[in-house]
Amino acid sequence: MSPYSNLERIHSPADLRALDRRELAVVADELRAFLIESVSKTGGHLSSNLGTVELSIALHYVFNTPEDRIVWDVGHQTYGHKVLTGRREAMSGLRHWGGISGFPRRCESEYDTFGTAHSSTSISAALGMAAAARDRGEDRSAIAVIGDGAMSAGMAFEALNNGGDMEGINLLVILNDNEMSISPPVGALTKILARLMSGSTYNTARKVGEKVLGMAPPVAELARKVEEHVKGMITPGTLFEEFGFHYYGPIDGHDLDALVPTLQNIKKLKGPQFLHVITRKGHGYKLAEADPILYHGVSKFDSAAGIQGGKSAGKLTYTQVFGDWLCDMAATDKRIVGITPAMREGSGLVRFEQEYPDRYYDVGIAEQHALTFAAGMACEGYRPVVAIYSTFLQRAYDQLIHDIALQNLPVLLAIDRGGLVGADGATHHGAFDLSYLACVPNLVIMAPADENECRQMLYTAVCHDGPTAVRYPRGSGTGVEPDKTMTALPIGKGEIRRRGSKIAVLAFGSMVPVALEVGDALDATVANMRFIKPLDDALVAELAATHELIVTLEENAVVGGAGAEVSRCVDTLPSRPRVLRLGLPDRFIDHGDQAQLLASVGLDKAGILESIARIYSGNS
Amino acid sequence: MSPYSNLERIHSPADLRALDRRELAVVADELRAFLIESVSKTGGHLSSNLGTVELSIALHYVFNTPEDRIVWDVGHQTYGHKVLTGRREAMSGLRHWGGISGFPRRCESEYDTFGTAHSSTSISAALGMAAAARDRGEDRSAIAVIGDGAMSAGMAFEALNNGGDMEGINLLVILNDNEMSISPPVGALTKILARLMSGSTYNTARKVGEKVLGMAPPVAELARKVEEHVKGMITPGTLFEEFGFHYYGPIDGHDLDALVPTLQNIKKLKGPQFLHVITRKGHGYKLAEADPILYHGVSKFDSAAGIQGGKSAGKLTYTQVFGDWLCDMAATDKRIVGITPAMREGSGLVRFEQEYPDRYYDVGIAEQHALTFAAGMACEGYRPVVAIYSTFLQRAYDQLIHDIALQNLPVLLAIDRGGLVGADGATHHGAFDLSYLACVPNLVIMAPADENECRQMLYTAVCHDGPTAVRYPRGSGTGVEPDKTMTALPIGKGEIRRRGSKIAVLAFGSMVPVALEVGDALDATVANMRFIKPLDDALVAELAATHELIVTLEENAVVGGAGAEVSRCVDTLPSRPRVLRLGLPDRFIDHGDQAQLLASVGLDKAGILESIARIYSGNS
Repeated sequence: MSPYSNLERIHSPADLRALDRRELAVVADELRAFLIESVSKTGGHLSSNLGTVELSIALHYVFNTPEDRIVWDVGHQTYGHKVLTGRREAMSGLRHWGGISGFPRRCESEYDTFGTAHSSTSISAALGMAAAARDRGEDRSAIAVIGDGAMSAGMAFEALNNGGDMEGINLLVILNDNEMSISPPVGALTKILARLMSGSTYNTARKVGEKVLGMAPPVAELARKVEEHVKGMITPGTLFEEFGFHYYGPIDGHDLDALVPTLQNIKKLKGPQFLHVITRKGHGYKLAEADPILYHGVSKFDSAAGIQGGKSAGKLTYTQVFGDWLCDMAATDKRIVGITPAMREGSGLVRFEQEYPDRYYDVGIAEQHALTFAAGMACEGYRPVVAIYSTFLQRAYDQLIHDIALQNLPVLLAIDRGGLVGADGATHHGAFDLSYLACVPNLVIMAPADENECRQMLYTAVCHDGPTAVRYPRGSGTGVEPDKTMTALPIGKGEIRRRGSKIAVLAFGSMVPVALEVGDALDATVANMRFIKPLDDALVAELAATHELIVTLEENAVVGGAGAEVSRCVDTLPSRPRVLRLGLPDRFIDHGDQAQLLASVGLDKAGILESIARIYSGNS
Repeated sequence: MSPYSNLERIHSPADLRALDRRELAVVADELRAFLIESVSKTGGHLSSNLGTVELSIALHYVFNTPEDRIVWDVGHQTYGHKVLTGRREAMSGLRHWGGISGFPRRCESEYDTFGTAHSSTSISAALGMAAAARDRGEDRSAIAVIGDGAMSAGMAFEALNNGGDMEGINLLVILNDNEMSISPPVGALTKILARLMSGSTYNTARKVGEKVLGMAPPVAELARKVEEHVKGMITPGTLFEEFGFHYYGPIDGHDLDALVPTLQNIKKLKGPQFLHVITRKGHGYKLAEADPILYHGVSKFDSAAGIQGGKSAGKLTYTQVFGDWLCDMAATDKRIVGITPAMREGSGLVRFEQEYPDRYYDVGIAEQHALTFAAGMACEGYRPVVAIYSTFLQRAYDQLIHDIALQNLPVLLAIDRGGLVGADGATHHGAFDLSYLACVPNLVIMAPADENECRQMLYTAVCHDGPTAVRYPRGSGTGVEPDKTMTALPIGKGEIRRRGSKIAVLAFGSMVPVALEVGDALDATVANMRFIKPLDDALVAELAATHELIVTLEENAVVGGAGAEVSRCVDTLPSRPRVLRLGLPDRFIDHGDQAQLLASVGLDKAGILESIARIYSGNS
């Protein structure tokens, strides 16, 4: 018999709602076991999903989904939700090419009311849905489920500030407090939440829940008692009440006997409600409980033995190259500080924090603040290094322009995950940065062709007295060992890597290796341009004068981006060879293996050769 | 004798600090009178500056500026600060070409520690400065002066959350609470502040201040008394204390006898401090007190008679065209809602709010939330219209990509102030939007050539089932009266406005009128491209096949932008005329008259003709 025999009978939340409440615990056990087995085979987020098993069940049990709208913040905790909403079998293709996404997606299920992945959008979206329901007179709930880490982002506060002041809306914000974002929590909010938890309410809630179930009173009586109990839990004067929300909790998010009646009661209330739920990342899987960061995002592993081995013996990732460089640089330059918006692990800052705790700033999930805080330090003579993912830099675009570039302040943006990131998909690709950065005056933008060049570019950035960005891809490079020595590159100068004839391939960053393959195949000249900005106009002119076709290659949107400036330069020259601009197509790109994705958009060797061949056949 | 004889002796804050405290009131009176007279001659922000006269004096009197750092949020309240820091005479050139800026600028004065203009950056920047001072062991204060409106932006909360948790920093946040952003205040925070003010502390503080001065006790005694008084004002449990700040206030921000001793005492304290100051916009000028919104930003006026007349009888502004369209559209389409991030007046939503109060959402200074809230409503079948300035849309770039475009939701961005805005200068020009928007998949981007086209494009946007942007310039257009009738334009189709030969000028939006002048001068073909995205490839191909030079014209950064896609299109064609891309140069552009600024960057008729002539002379 299947170990998931109860779970397998749940094809939609309606099946769940047909169960007696006391049967839910069995479903929870099976769901948890299923998730561990499933994620151990596909890879994906684990800790966060084990933490929301009971909450997913309780929400779909109590609320009339999809009529009631659940918006999952970040969305990396929705695997249980996916299983309960008809996607149990699809979990075997999770985050793989052609399979379901690791995040909620509106096109994937009517239960995925809002696509999420970047943090802290859920309250805004749910508030929009609640306002729509109010204005149409529809009696439905909108529920935002948001983690304590995500709550520290300004956007969440903007939504609380707006929602707490909006009349007649049916909005429930559930704070899924697991004392964790991806990195350990920071900021004043963490302390506020800790104070809320330190009272006796948490245990009381649990005991009341148990007692209520043990007595099994009639439904009306039960409702009355739970209502009292809910009211008793109100802790006045909390931060969230200041914002106009009715605050309930904290309650144990792994106790269905606390969760279900509490949600049932809150469901009856009107106006902005706030429920504080305590969960534990990795709950129910001892290995993940012991090391939730290790089990946050995993590759395939043996679910019985756990994740094996320490560092992989393979090539360095660009993230590691950056982290090592930052430590080495800090040792020789006292002006260096490292700033991260809550991405210590992902951005390679673990060693830096250990070696330079006084120069390490984790500012929380707060990209906007991170950049302007860096600008403030730069005003005082520091050389702040902001480690940030390309896709999250989109959150701080105005701060980059208005606070850093306009004032020409020497802040270094170490932009990780530029280009296609793989399994995280459309929400996480660093597909636009060269386009949105190139138009910013004063900014120097570099992209390394290999690991050593990455290190040297970071050093070059620190030597430059103005804002800089070094943009590198997710994962490992070509296996080039970085030189210990640091040497500044000349600003705005590329290099010719291969001399050929007729065709000149101008490659940016991660595209240099494939450009060299293409160069060998076609006997083409290949340039490693190094600088997106300032562009090496002299090199472009030289190549334009001596070749009949210029091909630009970048792992960035073909609209805007590096190629656009190459063609602007060519258009000013006496000799104007045709410019073929290759990059990411003008559409959002799904998840899948990085190499597979690059091939799918024609940015592998075969695809590039084909694009060039089309030019010569006249069918561009 | 000059009516400003005392003020004229203040050449720097050192002169101010040499005065006896009882002499400050006279300086305040003269400064206020000077500002009214000066702004009535130059135009500029008035209400906000009249509200900060005493605060500016008190801060420079108590703190050792520029050694202590004052960061003024938004910065449109710094005229008094400018006068006190050696720029009294320069005020006659305020916001004019070659004159001083209406905002703080690091390049203008060492007292301008951080350039501001966009809201809510001050706490982040001051925190960066405070962290730098701490790390170097320098005993200096960093002070952020932030309005209650600006405090509602998420970025301010990100900074509070980070700052309240940082040890050993010397940071003072002064909340300049005037119950106003530019529009009346909204959101839960407003109510929190009102509660803080409703207690007796405010009056008490004032009386204590008066009493202390009246007795004129020795300094030590005074300090002790004021310290008690400051301690007595602590209101525990407020929002700001939850964040780890010591909260003092509220005190009367027009009472120097309350301000000065309070600041003197707070200056002695370590750690994050928060002072709540109540001021009144327009204080001391009855006309402005009575209508602070009218006197928020003014043109030249007679300071005795006040601003005269109602609506100007001249041409409609694009803002008015938008506002009228929104009301007309809402009358026929129940799905329309209007959303503004605290810019009711500037965005032309006054009439809409009056006529459709239930469909009007002012979400506070919260651009990020505004877009995702709109996305939430769009999920429910609404057609949200977000009215936003180009420069402020930079704040919500990630939300546009991740929440709206990726989900292909039908949100309409009505982007005002695209292109050069004039007197507000570099921080406010809408110089980058076409570049950062063009790379976003799914987005339809339009720019109207005149007022009627603006109206028809807005209608076209609502008819389109996906995300759209209509981008129009600040101020009035060509005087074309909008048709009442609304007709959708074909998506992605431009039009030829003038047929000529040899040269084809492809103009986007606001550049169409000057393009027609150029066309007449050169007998060139002129196209009104209408759509930046999707580009009218067929029209580009037709023009490329029949002309020897393509000139693209846009009031947007020449890097990226509309011209970049025209040239990409041309590079795929059999016949490839040279493409001359004209737009804003790759540098930040100062303040001045709009026409003057356009001429300065070569985007007037003479400049465009000169650029074209250079191509023909071979000196491009």
